[in-house]
Amino acid sequence: MLKAEQNERLTRVGPGTAMGDFMRRFWVPFLAGTELEPDGAPQRVSLLGERLLAFRDTDGRVGLIDEFCPHRRASLFFGRNEECGIRCVYHGWKFDVEGRCLEVPSEPADSNLARKVRLTAYPVHEAGGLLWAWMGPAAERPAPPAFDWLGLPPEQCYFSQFVLNANWLQGMEGEFDSAHVSFLHRRLDMEVAKTSIVGEYFRNDTAPTWKIDPAPHGLVCAASRRTAENELYWRVTHFALPFYSMVAPEIGGCNSWRCWVPLDDENSWVVTVTYAPHRDITQAERDAWAAGHFAHPIVEPGSKRLAARAENDYLIDRAVQKTHSFTGIQGTRAQDAAMTESMGPITDRSREHLATSDQAIIAIRRLLLDSLACHGAGEAVPAMRSGDVYAVRSGSALLPDGVAYDQDKTLMREMGLAGAAEAAE
Amino acid sequence: MLKAEQNERLTRVGPGTAMGDFMRRFWVPFLAGTELEPDGAPQRVSLLGERLLAFRDTDGRVGLIDEFCPHRRASLFFGRNEECGIRCVYHGWKFDVEGRCLEVPSEPADSNLARKVRLTAYPVHEAGGLLWAWMGPAAERPAPPAFDWLGLPPEQCYFSQFVLNANWLQGMEGEFDSAHVSFLHRRLDMEVAKTSIVGEYFRNDTAPTWKIDPAPHGLVCAASRRTAENELYWRVTHFALPFYSMVAPEIGGCNSWRCWVPLDDENSWVVTVTYAPHRDITQAERDAWAAGHFAHPIVEPGSKRLAARAENDYLIDRAVQKTHSFTGIQGTRAQDAAMTESMGPITDRSREHLATSDQAIIAIRRLLLDSLACHGAGEAVPAMRSGDVYAVRSGSALLPDGVAYDQDKTLMREMGLAGAAEAAE
Amino acid sequence: MLKAEQNERLTRVGPGTAMGDFMRRFWVPFLAGTELEPDGAPQRVSLLGERLLAFRDTDGRVGLIDEFCPHRRASLFFGRNEECGIRCVYHGWKFDVEGRCLEVPSEPADSNLARKVRLTAYPVHEAGGLLWAWMGPAAERPAPPAFDWLGLPPEQCYFSQFVLNANWLQGMEGEFDSAHVSFLHRRLDMEVAKTSIVGEYFRNDTAPTWKIDPAPHGLVCAASRRTAENELYWRVTHFALPFYSMVAPEIGGCNSWRCWVPLDDENSWVVTVTYAPHRDITQAERDAWAAGHFAHPIVEPGSKRLAARAENDYLIDRAVQKTHSFTGIQGTRAQDAAMTESMGPITDRSREHLATSDQAIIAIRRLLLDSLACHGAGEAVPAMRSGDVYAVRSGSALLPDGVAYDQDKTLMREMGLAGAAEAAE
Repeated sequence: MLKAEQNERLTRVGPGTAMGDFMRRFWVPFLAGTELEPDGAPQRVSLLGERLLAFRDTDGRVGLIDEFCPHRRASLFFGRNEECGIRCVYHGWKFDVEGRCLEVPSEPADSNLARKVRLTAYPVHEAGGLLWAWMGPAAERPAPPAFDWLGLPPEQCYFSQFVLNANWLQGMEGEFDSAHVSFLHRRLDMEVAKTSIVGEYFRNDTAPTWKIDPAPHGLVCAASRRTAENELYWRVTHFALPFYSMVAPEIGGCNSWRCWVPLDDENSWVVTVTYAPHRDITQAERDAWAAGHFAHPIVEPGSKRLAARAENDYLIDRAVQKTHSFTGIQGTRAQDAAMTESMGPITDRSREHLATSDQAIIAIRRLLLDSLACHGAGEAVPAMRSGDVYAVRSGSALLPDGVAYDQDKTLMREMGLAGAAEAAE
Repeated sequence: MLKAEQNERLTRVGPGTAMGDFMRRFWVPFLAGTELEPDGAPQRVSLLGERLLAFRDTDGRVGLIDEFCPHRRASLFFGRNEECGIRCVYHGWKFDVEGRCLEVPSEPADSNLARKVRLTAYPVHEAGGLLWAWMGPAAERPAPPAFDWLGLPPEQCYFSQFVLNANWLQGMEGEFDSAHVSFLHRRLDMEVAKTSIVGEYFRNDTAPTWKIDPAPHGLVCAASRRTAENELYWRVTHFALPFYSMVAPEIGGCNSWRCWVPLDDENSWVVTVTYAPHRDITQAERDAWAAGHFAHPIVEPGSKRLAARAENDYLIDRAVQKTHSFTGIQGTRAQDAAMTESMGPITDRSREHLATSDQAIIAIRRLLLDSLACHGAGEAVPAMRSGDVYAVRSGSALLPDGVAYDQDKTLMREMGLAGAAEAAE
Repeated sequence: MLKAEQNERLTRVGPGTAMGDFMRRFWVPFLAGTELEPDGAPQRVSLLGERLLAFRDTDGRVGLIDEFCPHRRASLFFGRNEECGIRCVYHGWKFDVEGRCLEVPSEPADSNLARKVRLTAYPVHEAGGLLWAWMGPAAERPAPPAFDWLGLPPEQCYFSQFVLNANWLQGMEGEFDSAHVSFLHRRLDMEVAKTSIVGEYFRNDTAPTWKIDPAPHGLVCAASRRTAENELYWRVTHFALPFYSMVAPEIGGCNSWRCWVPLDDENSWVVTVTYAPHRDITQAERDAWAAGHFAHPIVEPGSKRLAARAENDYLIDRAVQKTHSFTGIQGTRAQDAAMTESMGPITDRSREHLATSDQAIIAIRRLLLDSLACHGAGEAVPAMRSGDVYAVRSGSALLPDGVAYDQDKTLMREMGLAGAAEAAE
């Protein structure tokens, strides 16, 4: 439970807000690189409440600029993307990816106006198939985050995206809510459910125990469940500042990475990257994920909207809910969205009743509030300074009773936390 | 004409408003009983501005609870209705029809959280095919209203419902506006119009005279029209606190009962029950009413929306308006809705020009304002205390000139007002 | 660039605003005469932010009245237009085109209510196929504006209309922005472009030079472009108070007249009249204009909405934009609307960067602000007093270098400005 003003502080991201100012000290992903072609159609981008335009110029460089021409404020979306710049179709004024005005052909030849006009433009970094923007002060720009999958070849990665119609924090909190997996995503038809040993772990212990540890990138949130054989099934999920989640894989399964980027206060861009650090992804896996498995979304063709969404009650099928799945809603992403979107665009956290299972959510809120306070006092948090702190990976393991996740060196090494563990010894 | 603040006082019904608080001292119908099946899909209910959820449990009991789970505020609409309770699909928390938390399976076995969490739940009474909620203080709960049709078998009743996109009072005032029947609902094609002697009464005298009398249930509003033979055609319509109308029948025709329940400030749930106190309803009557006659609505299949509605200009046909009906709009309910909805969601009563024909409307507003003042001063109005005051029925009769409706004992007996009439002698 | 309060002052037109009060001192066109038939369906009209109803009575007179019946405020849109008045279908009250209440049949025969009730009604003038309203004080009503095309027979005029979803000023400013023609409306496929010598002028000099002169009707805005032969191509466009534009024709081509009438603050009614002062319009011309040429709009059949509009990104075709036209949007009106609507409903003029090409826009804003100040001080501007000042016509000519438009007597005579020019000599 939060006070109303704390809730506002955590959820509002526009220019001038506390969280908005904080997030502008991190690189912010905003589009897949394939969504922009050289000299191709520009794309409107809403980002942290700002209306922007992205385009890729003749040389392949990406611009992320104010959507509106500074002259008379017509939308540059209708502009011509040509010869290393975008040209407003109203009067032919032309701007490059850095927001410089290159030409003002509607003015006399001796005009010096081009030198005086400048468009807001955010530096863009392209990596891992994503475009990342730096929206903060130039002097504070750090190295981009060094997520481990960024170094993998395409054969080892799978990408999907959708827009969640809810505040970013609301969506992201679902990732650190291990208990809900035992319910929301449960299968009732036992033939299906029994094929997954993990499904059995989730059913066997529906009240996981948390161990939550601070880390340079944010928090390590480890949930353990007791198995029928009295072992502990550990799932270790990372929260990385300011809006990343790396949810624990199935044991031996693929890893996943997700960002919850605020388009504005009430809509979020959610990218999932599933990756296999040590092998290629199979075609069978790609087919399954394209069909909405492993927490990839099913979207309306040609859009970023979920096919199952609020206006159609997530296509809930009450008969299916009776016999086949806990919700009657198809797809993990749609199930999660039904919960987080149904809370309203920004849930009223002053009316919650948090419980033991919510310890990771509570820890994340506290970290965020502390980080805002720290940043407001003029101090940087470690994740602002170094992209290297992001080189971690989530993990899972079956360990003997009494052994915590961070006592297992194999797991810690796999997660990229071995150094920290060894340093702590 | 009302002052702006009086208009606000009469029309706003949310928690904490004067009218909202007053209405919460009466049983409030909110759904047809058939809309909920044991262990079936729950239904979202908006009622007096509150977002609620209705469900019928395994044993047939109906719950009317807060729509949102108290844990993390996901909508319980997606919940599982099973084994005498509704279970949130997010973390499996389960609640019964009284709002008690039965299980919190995401918490450790020794958790006492279930005993501490409680959901808003309103007591529900089922009668006459309708579900009625008590939203006021438990100690003040009276017996449910004893409308006379509640005791009739289904063969003698016919039921319909729709949602009016306007404030409850606006819709209801149309019922106490006898004069409009002579115009809004008039037929122009004389072959049709002449088949009803009543239609002739309406055309013959378009300026009815009112006699309005107080009664324990609210008001008796009697309009008389002079016939060509110089008799008086009396139509006696009841207003029952807080939002009921019982419109006068045709002479010898079926009675009707209607409620104008505020879903919120700008939308109302309108139920019409047509009943024959002394005989079964014929199939021909049922067929006619299903086709929109006798003030029953024609709705979009599977919805509670009028087929003829604002967005399609009530399907007005100007050619039909020239020759067949006064409005060119089909159906009495749609004709009324065209008038009351076109005023805007909450009409500005400070800009009206009321006339002689509006005496009943004026009397109802005065009664409501007086009742709010009375309730605000801590006193109950009679209708709050006893369900028996509602055992009245509307009526109509042709009486000699000079004889008022309440001097005719047959009519008074038929309307259940004989006792009052005799006591007054 | 304007201050925020100046922008508000120029753009808000509701009752009681500075611009709204000013505009109400001019005749305001609101509908084509053909949209109303005697005793036909009335039409809802939004005008300067007021909700009105227009109808043509049995005798052909047009009423423009308050949309809502003064009795209970039902919409008169559903009314019966019959026997020289509109009759509310709720209670049969009847009003004539002057707002007089003719009958209140729901009241007793001796009622004097009809004499006491009065509806807002604005005097209407019909001319040139348009209906014009006087919404100001009766005592201040001037003669209607004497635009020169008003005297022409239908064979010499062509009419079109559409609704722009933006503030009136935003739309109108595009007319006084000569430079944009060289870009926004440019053709890239040279076979097409070369067929018009004028197109060559626009391409040859993309930075026109302004000469702007005050006039009783408003402003004469003349833009000159240098041709390849070093002559000056003059285009003389008129701004007439408060919302008229007369854009320069092609040399020897048809003239055009346009009004930008505020329906409300965020929507405008745009009428284009193209006329040939000295000959009949050909069928080929009519066919071309109906297909969207010469700045006539292509609208959705049966509506006043543009077919290419914001919700479909003006049907922009990026392939066409690469090779055939500067925008990839079809139709001059849609191209203009894409620019002016994409600025938002009311553009933020405090964030513009105006340039040399914007001198006419700057002059118009200054004239409007000065006129508001003048009117606010109780003084009339000349155009308020006399309809004759409007008898001007736009023009264009190819003149030798060094000769200004107003030094050419032929051109000045053609434009109806010869008197002024001679007086100035």
